[in-house]
Amino acid sequence: MDAQTTVQQLGEFGLVAEVTALAGGGGKVLIGPGDDAAHVAVRTGGYLVSTDLLIEDRHFRRDWSSAYEVGRKAAACNLSDIAAMGGVADALTVGLGVPGDLPAQWALDLARGVVDECKSVGAHLVGGDVTASEAIVVAVTAIGEATRPVRRDGARPGDVVAFAGNLGLAGAGFAALSRGFRSPRAAVESHRVPAPPYAAGPQAALAGATAMVDVSDGLLADLGHVATASEVAIDLDPALLPVAEPVATVAEALGLEPLTLVLTGGDDYALVATFPEGAELPSGWTRIGAVAEGAGVTVAGEPWEGSPGHRHFA
Amino acid sequence: MDAQTTVQQLGEFGLVAEVTALAGGGGKVLIGPGDDAAHVAVRTGGYLVSTDLLIEDRHFRRDWSSAYEVGRKAAACNLSDIAAMGGVADALTVGLGVPGDLPAQWALDLARGVVDECKSVGAHLVGGDVTASEAIVVAVTAIGEATRPVRRDGARPGDVVAFAGNLGLAGAGFAALSRGFRSPRAAVESHRVPAPPYAAGPQAALAGATAMVDVSDGLLADLGHVATASEVAIDLDPALLPVAEPVATVAEALGLEPLTLVLTGGDDYALVATFPEGAELPSGWTRIGAVAEGAGVTVAGEPWEGSPGHRHFA
Repeated sequence: MDAQTTVQQLGEFGLVAEVTALAGGGGKVLIGPGDDAAHVAVRTGGYLVSTDLLIEDRHFRRDWSSAYEVGRKAAACNLSDIAAMGGVADALTVGLGVPGDLPAQWALDLARGVVDECKSVGAHLVGGDVTASEAIVVAVTAIGEATRPVRRDGARPGDVVAFAGNLGLAGAGFAALSRGFRSPRAAVESHRVPAPPYAAGPQAALAGATAMVDVSDGLLADLGHVATASEVAIDLDPALLPVAEPVATVAEALGLEPLTLVLTGGDDYALVATFPEGAELPSGWTRIGAVAEGAGVTVAGEPWEGSPGHRHFA
Repeated sequence: MDAQTTVQQLGEFGLVAEVTALAGGGGKVLIGPGDDAAHVAVRTGGYLVSTDLLIEDRHFRRDWSSAYEVGRKAAACNLSDIAAMGGVADALTVGLGVPGDLPAQWALDLARGVVDECKSVGAHLVGGDVTASEAIVVAVTAIGEATRPVRRDGARPGDVVAFAGNLGLAGAGFAALSRGFRSPRAAVESHRVPAPPYAAGPQAALAGATAMVDVSDGLLADLGHVATASEVAIDLDPALLPVAEPVATVAEALGLEPLTLVLTGGDDYALVATFPEGAELPSGWTRIGAVAEGAGVTVAGEPWEGSPGHRHFA
């Protein structure tokens, strides 16, 4: 296979064989890719499972991100869901739809990105499917385990709200790319390959987190799910919300309110959780607000007048 | 919501809420849809997982199949993979990409089809993702358990080859639909909604099956995977291969060799397995051939001169 070989020339089985060779195995993988199903060991009596679907020109653009970066991000957004339950992912499957005239190397680079992101948490690519599709489609399912799964409906009045990871950085990158800029680099790279704080999820569970989600649609939107599911009000303290330097730079260049990027920017896959009052926050977690009786999410006691996060059918 | 409501009008969260209401729960489902990940109990120390990606106009056509039928089939082809490992599926996730102007009822009918097919094996829809896509995309992941997973690489010379389910029926339906016919009904309905012999998988495992796969691409093609993985030769006895009456009807009407449909027709999701010589075949299993030293799949000792199964990038 050379750099010009297309997916159609390599064929479905050829492509699957190349990807399978990348996948490796070991750990809890008892049967890896290549059979009707993979077989993975479980130690806690149950598994966590989450699925995401990424579509070309909706979730990624080939002119903004390399195939490797698309693979990293596709894996990251699912591995992050397992972390957001307080768990660690063990296994990942990928359903890949690609045009027949796509260079096979593009598909392999995507698979390499998936495998590398998996390695960062000790997970394995255990199976998948490849088929022809006009737009590139990447369907990822992550499976893992948690000693104590943390749901989104357990926040109680009096709890502390805290986060780990980046807020607004990927959103700033997206805003910059949308307007034709390729910098600041840290922001643009965060949009291309987010850096979820995977270890912070199990650490929060161990520290007694009462509710947790990852921030995929924006801090306000995702905390809104916690508030609704838990039937509580959440208030954020703007003085406690960090504005990273690249976020401030993008906000200034584009005439945006920096806090808008922090509060509504998606795709950073930060973790946000609630902890009992007085609980010692694990390293990497920062207090940003509090839970009270009531409903909805406010900033300094007021509704935030801004975009309410990403809408898929807007 | 009325019949004219589009996916875009209902919105991503509205659609997810409607689908979640269909999903139900119970059984081994500890946390169902609606959180970052679902949580499902495991009793055997491990899980089986399989993924398939179905794309509109490649794997289904809206003018040939109803949304409900597409949902049934999308679930069936994954649940069948778990059966082909000798297992029973417990949980299923669906990633659904749909155009914003699609009637929301279409998406809900698909979800209803998925849920109904899951019920036939006692599995639950535990999670998913909905996003905008030009072509309809259905990504399904099934997870289950097996007491003794049966791989495809365990066939040994001297083993008996047997199958359970339908052979050629869905292929005959596809051939009929492709030429503008809507009958024979049994064949066309098998193409729209296959009837995998789910229970035959665990029964074969219990009876000592040495290798097993489901027939998605065609009997010869899928047995070819067993022969290659097991490093054996497989010979089928044409006198033992049943030609169902609708298969014979379609073959005659279209001037095809009936055995070609039986040997190369895909999408029936029959199970084919190898058993030790002298093993008692479970009810529903029919002997069709034998395993020998060597390589490849033959019919009455000769290579079959026909189409080698479905190619995704052909």
